[in-house]
Amino acid sequence: MADNKKMVEAITSMDADFAQWYTDVVKKAELCDYASVKGCMVIKPAGYAIWENIQKELDRRFKETGVQNVYMPLFIPEGLLEKEKDHVEGFAPEVAWVTHGGLEPLQERLCVRPTSETLFCDFYAKDIHSYRDLPRVYNQWCSVVRWEKTTRPFLRSREFLWQEGHTAHATAEEAEARTVQMLNVYADFCEEVLAIPVVKGQKTDKEKFAGAEATYTIESLMHDGKALQSGTSHNFGDGFAKAFGIQFADKDNTLKYVYQTSWGMTTRMIGAIIMVHGDDNGLVLPPRIAPVQIMVVPIQQKKEGVLDKAYELRDRLLKSGFSVKADDTDKSPGWKFADCEMRGIPLRVEIGPKDMEQNQAVLVRRDNHEKTVVSLDELEAKAGELLETIQRDMLEKARKHRDSHTYTAEEWDEFVETINNKPGFVKAMWCGCRECEDKIKEETGATSRCMPFEQESLSDHCVCCGKPAKKMVYWGRAY
Amino acid sequence: MADNKKMVEAITSMDADFAQWYTDVVKKAELCDYASVKGCMVIKPAGYAIWENIQKELDRRFKETGVQNVYMPLFIPEGLLEKEKDHVEGFAPEVAWVTHGGLEPLQERLCVRPTSETLFCDFYAKDIHSYRDLPRVYNQWCSVVRWEKTTRPFLRSREFLWQEGHTAHATAEEAEARTVQMLNVYADFCEEVLAIPVVKGQKTDKEKFAGAEATYTIESLMHDGKALQSGTSHNFGDGFAKAFGIQFADKDNTLKYVYQTSWGMTTRMIGAIIMVHGDDNGLVLPPRIAPVQIMVVPIQQKKEGVLDKAYELRDRLLKSGFSVKADDTDKSPGWKFADCEMRGIPLRVEIGPKDMEQNQAVLVRRDNHEKTVVSLDELEAKAGELLETIQRDMLEKARKHRDSHTYTAEEWDEFVETINNKPGFVKAMWCGCRECEDKIKEETGATSRCMPFEQESLSDHCVCCGKPAKKMVYWGRAY
Repeated sequence: MADNKKMVEAITSMDADFAQWYTDVVKKAELCDYASVKGCMVIKPAGYAIWENIQKELDRRFKETGVQNVYMPLFIPEGLLEKEKDHVEGFAPEVAWVTHGGLEPLQERLCVRPTSETLFCDFYAKDIHSYRDLPRVYNQWCSVVRWEKTTRPFLRSREFLWQEGHTAHATAEEAEARTVQMLNVYADFCEEVLAIPVVKGQKTDKEKFAGAEATYTIESLMHDGKALQSGTSHNFGDGFAKAFGIQFADKDNTLKYVYQTSWGMTTRMIGAIIMVHGDDNGLVLPPRIAPVQIMVVPIQQKKEGVLDKAYELRDRLLKSGFSVKADDTDKSPGWKFADCEMRGIPLRVEIGPKDMEQNQAVLVRRDNHEKTVVSLDELEAKAGELLETIQRDMLEKARKHRDSHTYTAEEWDEFVETINNKPGFVKAMWCGCRECEDKIKEETGATSRCMPFEQESLSDHCVCCGKPAKKMVYWGRAY
Repeated sequence: MADNKKMVEAITSMDADFAQWYTDVVKKAELCDYASVKGCMVIKPAGYAIWENIQKELDRRFKETGVQNVYMPLFIPEGLLEKEKDHVEGFAPEVAWVTHGGLEPLQERLCVRPTSETLFCDFYAKDIHSYRDLPRVYNQWCSVVRWEKTTRPFLRSREFLWQEGHTAHATAEEAEARTVQMLNVYADFCEEVLAIPVVKGQKTDKEKFAGAEATYTIESLMHDGKALQSGTSHNFGDGFAKAFGIQFADKDNTLKYVYQTSWGMTTRMIGAIIMVHGDDNGLVLPPRIAPVQIMVVPIQQKKEGVLDKAYELRDRLLKSGFSVKADDTDKSPGWKFADCEMRGIPLRVEIGPKDMEQNQAVLVRRDNHEKTVVSLDELEAKAGELLETIQRDMLEKARKHRDSHTYTAEEWDEFVETINNKPGFVKAMWCGCRECEDKIKEETGATSRCMPFEQESLSDHCVCCGKPAKKMVYWGRAY
């Protein structure tokens, strides 16, 4: 097991330096790499395969709610970006500008899309005429660019992959319902597939999307107690429709403006998976998102029949619908175990000559290292049960961590003390004014994560200024 | 049937004006639309759904050959683009340049990728160390930008969607084998899925990819007799490896350069589907790529039970694995028939009160308008058989069209006469020199499409200069 140890030693421990641990896992699990282009990523096969599974699962859930996929241009003419005032103010400082096409300067600069509200609006203004054309429930999978100053793999990069849904509706009520519906799709996806529990709520005006009437968010808590905004859904009311002139003839033959929403989830969720589930041995992937769910590791593979048996077990498990590989490299079993762990493969099947004699295999869970000896006659059934248990236990563990790192504070001193000494969410009452939000950020580094849909009354006064409280807010330091 | 006729009248006939017919189909079948960004497209749901099916089918075939998906950055620093001389010469005149990030000018210009050889090479130079790291068989699905002056939906646009595979191998032989393997994947995909027959061959030096040692291509013939390059696969030898310093330690412990390939297929294949299979009633989709394979159209749907029966048939067909919709709008049957035809839906199921009495439905093929009355007891089986027949017949029809529009010419006058009067491929012998190729293009507008793998000896001399012939070439005017 010497080389096993050696490999494990190669990553920094979470407690020693969480940021370095994160970078080590990203690198050693071969998820992504820095590119020569500053602030951009190369997403490697192991990382991209996770994104493909996220896409497949989200896309299926979207389509069940009537979403249709489309593709809009990569570029936004400067004049188009400027049509909605709040929106351009929010995004102009961080976009990349194309000024030359081929050998000639462009007449109008084009920005590389940081998000595509303006393009969808421009299209909808031409394409929507009548109530019969509504609702429009479109989505696209693409990359977007935001010229960030400091970047981190998956969490913040100048280019990232995402989906962006953009819808248009006949009524404000329908738009609001769609905004909430998509937030729920995200929340269910996070909990059921990524095993990441989330808090659903609304962003404050300070934190909402540029141009939105209301932004809803799901917030998750990483292992180090920092929050991660994991998906957002925006209700635009008719603000964009008025700026872009998106009108339709309603049933009563009057011209009305549409009501719009948008919603997005990004490759940063790969960062969330790492930071919620990972441990000092590396990545830990929930079975429902793992590109490889089971790795079969032969023990003493040079002994006759062992490799064949390993392939046989792999093929049996493949046939049952699991995603399986067999590690037949010439590395030692210890090295292979460590490698499986580093890559986060949920279940390991060990098979050697002694196991073969006894018609058994050893199943080892990635999440808690628990070993189960199973008869080969029930291999598929037991593997399936274990994967389901792992999925359930990972969510449960993440929920417990989240709950045990969620604190409350009624008074200012208690709030500052908690933020500074207890990494996690702090629930506290808020008067609703921007000044308190600014002060909290300035003095503690914490931001309002959301006003949760499930409100509680912790006290009658704002934790910051003491004036009457309007909302209970989740506060925290965030990625 | 009055409104049926009216709708059909709305598109230009193919024979009257093929280019206008194409634009009409793109628009009326709602495949894509022009964007406010000059030269860029909005791919609408009906168009994007075809692309999703192309992606699904190609991606599956790629993965069966060991391809892994990755994602490289959107931007290429100017210095990186310039590393391979031929490559930069080919692409620099048609790239879009980013000069500003946020509010500040960039120190080095970035081009928006027109293709990603340079990014993959830059990555491979860091990532490949040993023969154990080879082969690398990576692919990405993304959009690329080429600053074209004249554009047409799907066929030529400033931004388009594609996949680009980029591989690195230990030997020249392995690279050559992969280049041919991927060309065959494309050819099989075109014939088996898109029902488009192709000619496989090699590009001349004049027409090959900038930086390639050899470019292989599949060429298809559109209804109007013009050729369309439908997929290319390039063997780079070790040229890029030397320019980028991509070396590996081989088994014998010496440092060697890798051998590389790249291969791509794009959204222009949607244009090919339109132009190979379409007719004066609109789009005709091969069943294996059609997002909706069967449309159930109720006749006299206000009569009791008709709509329910239509839904029942739809659900039965869905259950059998077909992609099915029922048109329950308040339009007339004639309008619905024309609409189905315009959108290219392969099979229409008509069900009305009289059919119900006789426990039957009428199945109408899109490709040849043939009607079959089937007992409802065998609906699924007959629909399945018909879809298979349609797929086969469409390929056969396209093959016949291609073959009957493929001519030969031995002498110059005959060649010019054929090119000018008989739209299609012209097979003719070539001496191998650039001068003849240039003259042919200048005087006839035809380009060398490929030197087919299946060579024939039509004569002993070049059709242009009369000198000894080296290769039989497919010539044609092309998109």
